[in-house]
Amino acid sequence: MTEPRYDVVAIGNAVVDVIASCEDELIEELELNRGGMTLVDEARADDLYRAMPPAREVSGGSAANTLAGISTLGLQCAFIGQVADDQLGKVFRHDMRATGIDFDTPARQGEPATGRVLIFVTPDGERTMNTFLGAGQYLPASALDESLIASGAILYLEGYLWDPEEPRKAMRRAIEVARGAGRKVAFTASESFVIERHGDDFRDLIDNGMIDILFVNESELATLTGEPSFEKGFEMIAPKVPCLVATRSEKGAVADAGGVRASVPAEPVAKVVDTTGAGDQFAAGFLCGFAHGEELEKCLRRGAIAAAEVISHYGPRPETDLQKLMAEKL
Amino acid sequence: MTEPRYDVVAIGNAVVDVIASCEDELIEELELNRGGMTLVDEARADDLYRAMPPAREVSGGSAANTLAGISTLGLQCAFIGQVADDQLGKVFRHDMRATGIDFDTPARQGEPATGRVLIFVTPDGERTMNTFLGAGQYLPASALDESLIASGAILYLEGYLWDPEEPRKAMRRAIEVARGAGRKVAFTASESFVIERHGDDFRDLIDNGMIDILFVNESELATLTGEPSFEKGFEMIAPKVPCLVATRSEKGAVADAGGVRASVPAEPVAKVVDTTGAGDQFAAGFLCGFAHGEELEKCLRRGAIAAAEVISHYGPRPETDLQKLMAEKL
Repeated sequence: MTEPRYDVVAIGNAVVDVIASCEDELIEELELNRGGMTLVDEARADDLYRAMPPAREVSGGSAANTLAGISTLGLQCAFIGQVADDQLGKVFRHDMRATGIDFDTPARQGEPATGRVLIFVTPDGERTMNTFLGAGQYLPASALDESLIASGAILYLEGYLWDPEEPRKAMRRAIEVARGAGRKVAFTASESFVIERHGDDFRDLIDNGMIDILFVNESELATLTGEPSFEKGFEMIAPKVPCLVATRSEKGAVADAGGVRASVPAEPVAKVVDTTGAGDQFAAGFLCGFAHGEELEKCLRRGAIAAAEVISHYGPRPETDLQKLMAEKL
Repeated sequence: MTEPRYDVVAIGNAVVDVIASCEDELIEELELNRGGMTLVDEARADDLYRAMPPAREVSGGSAANTLAGISTLGLQCAFIGQVADDQLGKVFRHDMRATGIDFDTPARQGEPATGRVLIFVTPDGERTMNTFLGAGQYLPASALDESLIASGAILYLEGYLWDPEEPRKAMRRAIEVARGAGRKVAFTASESFVIERHGDDFRDLIDNGMIDILFVNESELATLTGEPSFEKGFEMIAPKVPCLVATRSEKGAVADAGGVRASVPAEPVAKVVDTTGAGDQFAAGFLCGFAHGEELEKCLRRGAIAAAEVISHYGPRPETDLQKLMAEKL
C-alpha cells in the first residue's frame, strides 16, 4: 500500500447553485418540497427559474462543497464529477480549482447542460432545492480515474449520485477500487428520498463492511433503519460501521467510532441566513479532524464550527478563513 | 406628447459580475487598476479568471443595476442591452425580468459570449473591476426599440457604453429619440477613463443641452472640467445642466437643480463589504425621488440610503426591501 497522494478524493454532483431569497408563499404557490431536495427535469427547472426572484450563482454539489471545506482547511483534495462543456461548467471547474482542488474529469460534449440546483431560501434560512442533474447524470464509470481514487486516503461519496444509473455504477466501481487499494470509504446519505429508493443497496454496503465512515442526519437515519427513535436507530447502525456520524441540526451531532461515543451541541449562529451546505460543511470539518487522527469530539467540533459558518451567509461553501476560525474556537 | 408608459428606460452594458474576495497582494501581483474599471479582452479575462479565487456570479452592468434599484423601489422600468445566446445571457435576462424590468432586446447569436466583469474585492471593501464587454460591445442602433425609448419619462444612459463604437452610435440615436419625444435624458459619467477618451463628446452634449440629469463622482467631475477643486468644478457644470448630482463617497453627495442646492452626508454603514454598485444604487435612489417630484434633498437621501445598502453586501444590486428601508429612514 503506497502512501496516499490526496487526503480525500470525492465523487459527486458537479452543479451550480442558483440561490434566491423568497417568501414562504412562493414555496406553496410552486408546490415545492419545503426544506427538501427534489430532482426535476429541464422543463420543470426552466419553469421554476422563470418564477424565481433574482438570484446569485455559486458552485455547489454536496461532495464538491465538502471538498471545498476540506481544501480550505489545508488538506489535499481531488474531485471527480461531470460538467458539460458550457459556461456553468467552466464556473464550476474554476471554483474547484481556485479552492485548490484537483479536478480533471473532462467536460461532456453536447446536451444536457451542466447541472444546476434552484434553491429557494425562505426568511427562516431554510433552503428548498430543485435539482436538474444535467450532464452529471451521465458520469460514466469510464470517467473514473482509478489511479486517482487509489491515491486518496479517503474516498468520499454522496448518496445523491446513487439515483441516476450511470453514476451509481461508477460509484460501485470506485468503492471496489478504493477498498482494493486499502483506502477508507466515507459516504453521506444525502437525503431521505435517496434512501427510500436505494436503501437496500446502502444497507448491503453497510452490512458488507464497505463503508468506513457514514454521515446521516436524523431523517436519513430513520429512513435507513425504519426506526423512528433516533437513539434506537443510532444503536442499530453504529456497530456496523467503523465510524458513524449523525447530525441533528440545532440539536448538535453525535458520533461513534468502535464504541467510543462523543457528542457536541450545535455552534451558536447570530442569524441563520441560508442552511444550504450545512451538512456538507459539517462533513468537511469532521473529515479534516479525522484525517489528522484527532479525537472524535474534536472532529465533531470542527464539523459544528464549519456548519455554523456556512449557514450564516448565502451559498454552500465557506466564505471565511476556516483555519483561522477553528484556531480561535478550538 | 403622450403619457409615458415607463418611469425609466435605460440602455447599458448587459454583463454578469464574477465577484471574489482577495487579499491586496493579488491586486499587485496581477497588476490591476485598484478601485477602477479596466476594459480587458477575452484572453486577459481568461487569464485573470484563472488567477481569481472562488467567486459568485450575479447580474451586473451599471445602468442595469440602477434599473434594478429603481424597479425594487416600485417604478416601471425597461432595459435595452446586448447579451449573447448563452447561459450567462439567460442569467442576466432572468435577473432583470425577475426584478420586474421589461427586457426584450434579442440575444445576439454566435461569439463573443455575454460580457462579464471580474471583480476583485479587497478586505477594505474596495472593488477592482476588469470588464470583458463581450456581446455588449455590439449593441447596434438597430437594436433600439425607438417606441420604447419614446415611452419612458426618463432615458438613462451609462458612460461605459460610450467606449465601444456601435453602442456609442446607438446612444446618440437614443438621445435624439428621447428628446424628440419630449423626455428627459439622464446620464452617468461612469468612470474617469471614459471621460478621458470621450470628454469632448460629453462636453458637447452638456453644452448643447442634451443632458437633463448628470451623475458624476469627484474624479469624473475633475476629468470632465479639468479643474481639480471639487467646488469649482461643480460650479462650472451646474449652470449647464438642469440637474447635476455629484457623489463624493464617504463625504456624501451634492446636487444642484436650477440653482437650488442640496447636500447630504453619506449614510452610515456598519461594515463596507463590497463597494460594487454604490454609484449605481445612489443613482437609483435619486432617480426614484426625482421621478416622484420630491425635493432635491430627499432625492439625495434616497440615493445615500440605497448606496449604503448595496455596499453592505457582495453584489451590485439591492438585497433588502428598499421600499421598507426608506420608509423607516425617511
